[in-house]
Amino acid sequence: MIKMVNESRVQLGVCYYPEQWPETLWDDDMRRMKQLNFQYIRIGEFAWSIFEPEEGVFQFELFDKVCDLAAQHGLQVIMGTPTATPPAWLTYKYPEVLNASKEGVSYYHGQRRHYNYSSKIYRDKCATITMKLAEHYKNHEAVVGWQIDNELNCETNVFYAEADHSAFREWLQTKYGTLDKLNDAWGAVFWNQTYSDWQQVHLIRPTPSDSPNPHQALDEKRFISDNTISFAKLQADILRREAPNQWVTTNGLFGHLDNHKLTDDLLDFYSYDSYPQFSSISQEAGDQPLRDRRVSLNLSVVRSISPNFCIMEQQSGPGGWVNRMEMPSPKPGQMRLWTYQSIAHGADMVLYFRWRTAIAGTEIYWHGINDYHNRPNRRVREVEQIGQELMELGLGERIAGKIYKSKVAMVRDYANDWDGELDRWYGPLIWKSEMAWFKTLQYQHIPMDYVFLDSKLNIAELSSYEVLIYPHGAVMTIKTAALLRQYVEQGGKLVLGARTGYKDEYGKVRMEEMPGPVADLCGIIVEDFTLIAGTEKPAYIEWSGDELIAEGFNDILQVDSDTVEVIANYKDKYYAGKPVLTRNRVGQGEVYYYGAAYNELVARKLLDSLSLESPISEWCELPQSVELAIRSNDEGKVIFLLNYAAEAVQLKFKKKVFDQITGRDLEHDVELEAYGVIVILQ
Amino acid sequence: MIKMVNESRVQLGVCYYPEQWPETLWDDDMRRMKQLNFQYIRIGEFAWSIFEPEEGVFQFELFDKVCDLAAQHGLQVIMGTPTATPPAWLTYKYPEVLNASKEGVSYYHGQRRHYNYSSKIYRDKCATITMKLAEHYKNHEAVVGWQIDNELNCETNVFYAEADHSAFREWLQTKYGTLDKLNDAWGAVFWNQTYSDWQQVHLIRPTPSDSPNPHQALDEKRFISDNTISFAKLQADILRREAPNQWVTTNGLFGHLDNHKLTDDLLDFYSYDSYPQFSSISQEAGDQPLRDRRVSLNLSVVRSISPNFCIMEQQSGPGGWVNRMEMPSPKPGQMRLWTYQSIAHGADMVLYFRWRTAIAGTEIYWHGINDYHNRPNRRVREVEQIGQELMELGLGERIAGKIYKSKVAMVRDYANDWDGELDRWYGPLIWKSEMAWFKTLQYQHIPMDYVFLDSKLNIAELSSYEVLIYPHGAVMTIKTAALLRQYVEQGGKLVLGARTGYKDEYGKVRMEEMPGPVADLCGIIVEDFTLIAGTEKPAYIEWSGDELIAEGFNDILQVDSDTVEVIANYKDKYYAGKPVLTRNRVGQGEVYYYGAAYNELVARKLLDSLSLESPISEWCELPQSVELAIRSNDEGKVIFLLNYAAEAVQLKFKKKVFDQITGRDLEHDVELEAYGVIVILQ
Amino acid sequence: MIKMVNESRVQLGVCYYPEQWPETLWDDDMRRMKQLNFQYIRIGEFAWSIFEPEEGVFQFELFDKVCDLAAQHGLQVIMGTPTATPPAWLTYKYPEVLNASKEGVSYYHGQRRHYNYSSKIYRDKCATITMKLAEHYKNHEAVVGWQIDNELNCETNVFYAEADHSAFREWLQTKYGTLDKLNDAWGAVFWNQTYSDWQQVHLIRPTPSDSPNPHQALDEKRFISDNTISFAKLQADILRREAPNQWVTTNGLFGHLDNHKLTDDLLDFYSYDSYPQFSSISQEAGDQPLRDRRVSLNLSVVRSISPNFCIMEQQSGPGGWVNRMEMPSPKPGQMRLWTYQSIAHGADMVLYFRWRTAIAGTEIYWHGINDYHNRPNRRVREVEQIGQELMELGLGERIAGKIYKSKVAMVRDYANDWDGELDRWYGPLIWKSEMAWFKTLQYQHIPMDYVFLDSKLNIAELSSYEVLIYPHGAVMTIKTAALLRQYVEQGGKLVLGARTGYKDEYGKVRMEEMPGPVADLCGIIVEDFTLIAGTEKPAYIEWSGDELIAEGFNDILQVDSDTVEVIANYKDKYYAGKPVLTRNRVGQGEVYYYGAAYNELVARKLLDSLSLESPISEWCELPQSVELAIRSNDEGKVIFLLNYAAEAVQLKFKKKVFDQITGRDLEHDVELEAYGVIVILQ
Repeated sequence: MIKMVNESRVQLGVCYYPEQWPETLWDDDMRRMKQLNFQYIRIGEFAWSIFEPEEGVFQFELFDKVCDLAAQHGLQVIMGTPTATPPAWLTYKYPEVLNASKEGVSYYHGQRRHYNYSSKIYRDKCATITMKLAEHYKNHEAVVGWQIDNELNCETNVFYAEADHSAFREWLQTKYGTLDKLNDAWGAVFWNQTYSDWQQVHLIRPTPSDSPNPHQALDEKRFISDNTISFAKLQADILRREAPNQWVTTNGLFGHLDNHKLTDDLLDFYSYDSYPQFSSISQEAGDQPLRDRRVSLNLSVVRSISPNFCIMEQQSGPGGWVNRMEMPSPKPGQMRLWTYQSIAHGADMVLYFRWRTAIAGTEIYWHGINDYHNRPNRRVREVEQIGQELMELGLGERIAGKIYKSKVAMVRDYANDWDGELDRWYGPLIWKSEMAWFKTLQYQHIPMDYVFLDSKLNIAELSSYEVLIYPHGAVMTIKTAALLRQYVEQGGKLVLGARTGYKDEYGKVRMEEMPGPVADLCGIIVEDFTLIAGTEKPAYIEWSGDELIAEGFNDILQVDSDTVEVIANYKDKYYAGKPVLTRNRVGQGEVYYYGAAYNELVARKLLDSLSLESPISEWCELPQSVELAIRSNDEGKVIFLLNYAAEAVQLKFKKKVFDQITGRDLEHDVELEAYGVIVILQ
Repeated sequence: MIKMVNESRVQLGVCYYPEQWPETLWDDDMRRMKQLNFQYIRIGEFAWSIFEPEEGVFQFELFDKVCDLAAQHGLQVIMGTPTATPPAWLTYKYPEVLNASKEGVSYYHGQRRHYNYSSKIYRDKCATITMKLAEHYKNHEAVVGWQIDNELNCETNVFYAEADHSAFREWLQTKYGTLDKLNDAWGAVFWNQTYSDWQQVHLIRPTPSDSPNPHQALDEKRFISDNTISFAKLQADILRREAPNQWVTTNGLFGHLDNHKLTDDLLDFYSYDSYPQFSSISQEAGDQPLRDRRVSLNLSVVRSISPNFCIMEQQSGPGGWVNRMEMPSPKPGQMRLWTYQSIAHGADMVLYFRWRTAIAGTEIYWHGINDYHNRPNRRVREVEQIGQELMELGLGERIAGKIYKSKVAMVRDYANDWDGELDRWYGPLIWKSEMAWFKTLQYQHIPMDYVFLDSKLNIAELSSYEVLIYPHGAVMTIKTAALLRQYVEQGGKLVLGARTGYKDEYGKVRMEEMPGPVADLCGIIVEDFTLIAGTEKPAYIEWSGDELIAEGFNDILQVDSDTVEVIANYKDKYYAGKPVLTRNRVGQGEVYYYGAAYNELVARKLLDSLSLESPISEWCELPQSVELAIRSNDEGKVIFLLNYAAEAVQLKFKKKVFDQITGRDLEHDVELEAYGVIVILQ
Repeated sequence: MIKMVNESRVQLGVCYYPEQWPETLWDDDMRRMKQLNFQYIRIGEFAWSIFEPEEGVFQFELFDKVCDLAAQHGLQVIMGTPTATPPAWLTYKYPEVLNASKEGVSYYHGQRRHYNYSSKIYRDKCATITMKLAEHYKNHEAVVGWQIDNELNCETNVFYAEADHSAFREWLQTKYGTLDKLNDAWGAVFWNQTYSDWQQVHLIRPTPSDSPNPHQALDEKRFISDNTISFAKLQADILRREAPNQWVTTNGLFGHLDNHKLTDDLLDFYSYDSYPQFSSISQEAGDQPLRDRRVSLNLSVVRSISPNFCIMEQQSGPGGWVNRMEMPSPKPGQMRLWTYQSIAHGADMVLYFRWRTAIAGTEIYWHGINDYHNRPNRRVREVEQIGQELMELGLGERIAGKIYKSKVAMVRDYANDWDGELDRWYGPLIWKSEMAWFKTLQYQHIPMDYVFLDSKLNIAELSSYEVLIYPHGAVMTIKTAALLRQYVEQGGKLVLGARTGYKDEYGKVRMEEMPGPVADLCGIIVEDFTLIAGTEKPAYIEWSGDELIAEGFNDILQVDSDTVEVIANYKDKYYAGKPVLTRNRVGQGEVYYYGAAYNELVARKLLDSLSLESPISEWCELPQSVELAIRSNDEGKVIFLLNYAAEAVQLKFKKKVFDQITGRDLEHDVELEAYGVIVILQ
């Protein structure tokens, strides 16, 4: 079942913390929210002590008042379960609920997310508070939905409390049944790691030089994901049972969590927290940095979970904690640009984080729309403009329910993400190649989706794309290989990279020539190879006269089939003249194998072979700084043009179209202002 | 009461460790000390096991001999209480006296300062050894004073033993009375940190991403300071009671300690340990580094505690531990220069550290005057020269008791130092601006004081300065704001910078427009702002044709009063044309608000507006490398000219003056040798 | 007794892990090993759980089959004792066998080498498994020798379990007898570290700024070495007693272990693991990096232990763990070059690591000769060529038993290695100077040995060298000084450097002028000195018109004898004109004192004074990239010319010689291919 937001128009809203402010402000706050065309407020997710000030004593007065007031103002409430921040009384009385570092150092009360998902006591306490909240608010007229916890696996995505070691052991017993199977899956015969009793088995623990068993490390991440989902399910089940008329979501895209499964199994739709200004914290590699535009990649991943979705937290100003993540102020126009970026990629609900900047605690610099002083400012004015465009111009209705469309998809899967996190022999290549492709497609104005390989993925879904790019699927099952073959045979173009297919589902290596289960599909084998690292420099490539380089890893290819065409060869080193890029025609389609990590020049040059170009190239020329995104359904298309540059840029329109926002005709040379947005309906 | 050294002449001396040397050397050592014109020796501060080799067994033979011998040689003794290095038997038997890391790892015997100040047992043991020493030496003819412990808060200035957690809790109970007040002060409603029982409250503990509650962090530092003073008070009270005729001091200027309160409450005067060669360890930012001259800043802080003071440890050669802080040898002349640097800033007692270089332990490279071989060397000869100049030429009598004079003071306070240590949104600006001002004033030969904002500071003290520079007082009380207004109204010039006044005494943010309690005084408000960090570049400034840049932070100002004059505006970014530097005339004075961190060019340009120039500019031109310092009292002035350069430099005298050291007349072009010193009496 | 391999020809072999592969592969594996001219397989060293799957239950079936099969194929077996990887049941049941970090964090099952050498239980378990293996295999026809454990002190060479603290205490009681002597040796009077009860004494523990007592730190390393040897001795004694007809060795050259003593006391010969590709991991300082050729230095150290020796693991391809030490593939020819490098330096047995690349575990990228796919590849072919050259051409017989010859030796000792590890005032100089000398001699084609100063070193051994270079022997006993004098008097040339001789055997400083016990021999004293560090730049040197620099440290020398000739003086700084390099003629020899750390230019210029040149310079001119090594005995010489360059290079032969490998005459200009090898018999 596709998990989507179901709104009749794009809705705005805001995260609100009434418990942090005098009650005298609430009414004015809500009045102004409505003025800004907000429909939603999210509340409650860090307020456990308000609801349960001491163990077993529950009180709802504060939030009852808030919900009643919201109802009066016509605002709808998303209620957060407060389990991301256990009360001091809870962690003090039951220290076993705390998470710990790998070295066994407990995390304590004083920040947030310091608990583990495995403790029976913590699960009980979470079930109780969720039940109490559900019982109390299930019929409140203002309350329409629930957010489970907050940003699962943010801050840390590893867990080493005693309860986690035990839960991992149980998870392994369920998965493997016998120790023999576990020992085999983990290759435990190597370095004498064979287990003879389940009690000997643990999550990764300290070792002299911190190189754990890699198959154990992969299972640890799978366990953490399953355990996180199981923790969320406890709450979801209660909410479904108690409050069947309210929807359920959660927010965030963090590590060691299969968000697809989480959403499929538990949620109505997925929610994401969008902070494009994180891009300002560190310098980005390369000479054409994406900066805030890189969030479009994350949004594309989010879309693979819920084709349309909610932004539960949209950046509202400068951000950062007191001692970390210092983000400068967004420039005038950027908050609006980022809101349209979210919407262009599929958001049908956007809540700003937060209404007013906190005046105490770790997030006094994670600014809300309103400043500390609560008087008019440019950020409130900018949000007001967005609300007017979406609501008063009726743009919100035209956009909602339409889906982002692309002909090309990047293929990703959790197995390689998690195995590659430890494995430096291919893990770093994934991100390098994905960024190279993403930037290339962005700068060529070619919309791109993400597709995740999982148990529910079928050929129909794959076949909706003309091109699939799967850069470094080192871990590859036979089933995946078969699915990819089916895709190609039906006419798809498949683009692979170095290190494909040499590992099985446990991250163990196949006793086969690479690329293992897709060697036949590719028509090549890897004859020899070298890591490009340390003192080893990348090799040059000969490809129709262009000088390119093969980075990261060099697979030296040997053609193994008559149907294979060598597109490019290595140009230097002892493997000069050997193939580096091949194309095999199989059935109606074709498959490319590139024996290295992709960089932008290589990706750019491959676009021609793949016949990929901008879907509006016939009537519109865009400069590099402008992103193109198209949402469509049977009723038509909405075309978004988003300028990320700090300067006005020139667009060229070969036919006349109409900008819904400014109400102006666009024809010939058109200037789009810094951070400007054009929306065209077709 | 002003806490000052009371010497009739500048005195020299040396730190001495007789317990580390054969008794056969002592007599010769003291004979040579007297030859060098030394008056003082400091002994005993690391000798607890000599005094108390096993628990409750006391012996004084060794130090009795040393003190008697000192008396014979006419040397005076400063006795150290040995509490910085507890005996092995003590920490082994009572491990609860040990300090621990935040993660709970105990520090153990093997180095020094591994104890905590909170343990009842450790306090008892310290009281006993102090009492025994006081009883024994209170009437010894050679013993004139006491040093409490050694370098309090050196090595580490955080404490996380169980006893510290308990002591912090008690301190908070005293401060806040109720948990409600604590919860409010710490903004505990944020992230559900509300405490419902005192036992839940701790010092900062490990959390998943190490961002503690900032208000708790500020109180932690206040507690550490109070706790350190309380630990020292235990000893001071005993010494005062038992040995009322001997004075009491302690040495060092380390973190998380209000040295002003410590001195006011407990000591006769403050002592500092001066190691200018620390400047050689790391490269200093900027193209005109201060290097060893930066110690003049520290000495200026010391002077704000005790207008004249003791240097308990003056660098005597290369320094460093076996595996840390490797300092090259001072060049010939530098030890003498640094001695005069200390004296020029107010030292009336200078003890070298140490007599002879240790031949065992962690400090075998922390060289004393004498080398391992104990034969004549250049460092002994250099100290001999200093003694002759000060004692035999009578210079010491002329200097003693006179006080360093300046028209400008830098304002600092512990609240911002401690809160800004965690808070990266203004903390780093403080040091940046202070260094910019200090370097600018040094290179323009304008003497400068430090003034600390504390409960005893009054308008009279402030009004002795024509200009006060208070760069980034983010934490500011209403009382401080009132005092600053009073200062300005009476004719003072006040110079403020970005981020002033937005926090209250708990480090929480005011719900007001910035700069909060001084907005009215400044006549401006901060309309918008941005951190300058990550990818955000500093803004350019338009200021009478000069191109300057606004670094660190950009407050965008809005004039709010007719009395305000805009001195400079931003030149680029979306806030081009908005004010960055304003002057408001209030009463007889004026107040400047600069919406960024100061750099040297901005500070230099402001000097003209502030009418600051060298007090001897009429008759003497100094090159940049020469520091000017003036000590004076009713009887006259002593003018010090100190050349920090490795080369001889040229000075120009427009009137004839007399160099007390060389006995030469100075007129027209005068050469001052590398590391050279001129002393002029007026 | 000289501990040497005793082979009639150079033998090849391979490390083999039959337990990791299906039994069906074994026969084919061994058949192919023999085809490659292999004689040895090493097995068993990580297979404890195979031998003892549960406590006290022993089984030998798997390895019996392997040994029998080896016998059938004519392969000889080296059996490893499996104590480097205790079984999971052992560490789970007896956690006291685990090693711990200095902070007390236990290392656990999951990698390898996570045990301590001190636990009585672990020693018992190791004795038992060794006894069982010895009893079982002592008479097996294929089993010829034993490897104890694997790479002692690899991964970590410090040990802080409770059992280690106790063992250290016992070791100290044996060494010092009384606490008084311990306190004296450790200079415990400094910082009040005096111990009054043995229970107070520990290995180094956490302290506030991690600067331990340096004499304790030196004793800690001596203890670790003795304790490691004691651990190995337990096994060696059992093997000697049970299996007197099989030889015993161990492999690896790791820290805190006196491998000379280990070998002298316990082994038949020493074995080394050679991985030249480690040089690819990090950039090497300097503009003429040695890269893989640096392993020749390690091999020279190995040779000082066993003049000929075994390479138990010779690199067989790319290497690295999943998340560390990523090494690119060796280029074609490099594996062969590295094999000859080992042989040229004295290896008479070379086993490749490993037969086939692991398909599971941490070392899936530590490639064996065979790839995962087990089909022919270039690495197998390269090894085949080596086998043919050594065995089928008969080269192996000609080489075996001959010893590497040189006229110059570098002097090293464990005391300075271990004391200098902590002491940054001379420790880093050792490596710097050794590398400068090693590179200079390599690039001038002058063979070099290492000589270790230890109790068994005698004047006869020293006198076989014309030149000894002992760069920075800070720790120097009177006995060593006397030995060096004897060497010089008999005609030797001794080359010393800065910081020589100022410490005694405990690492305490002598109350003497430097260079202490060799001051008289050198005829100079160190008048003054400075570290060159931080902001302090190296000094220039005046030496016959060449401009050189004195790095690292500057001893300023004062000539103290008529027999001293000043060779070079400082050129700048306050010590310009003072001597930096002197030569003293003593007896028949001469001694050089250089007051700094050596760099390549200084070492190069000294070669002339020392009359050192290539031993084949009369008839052969070699380019820099070619290493010269000569092995010889009464029967003649084998001359190896090894080209480390990636390109072919030109050699010039002034007389005609014969290349044993290619069978070609070498005369006039001769090209040696990239990574090429020439072997000449004389």
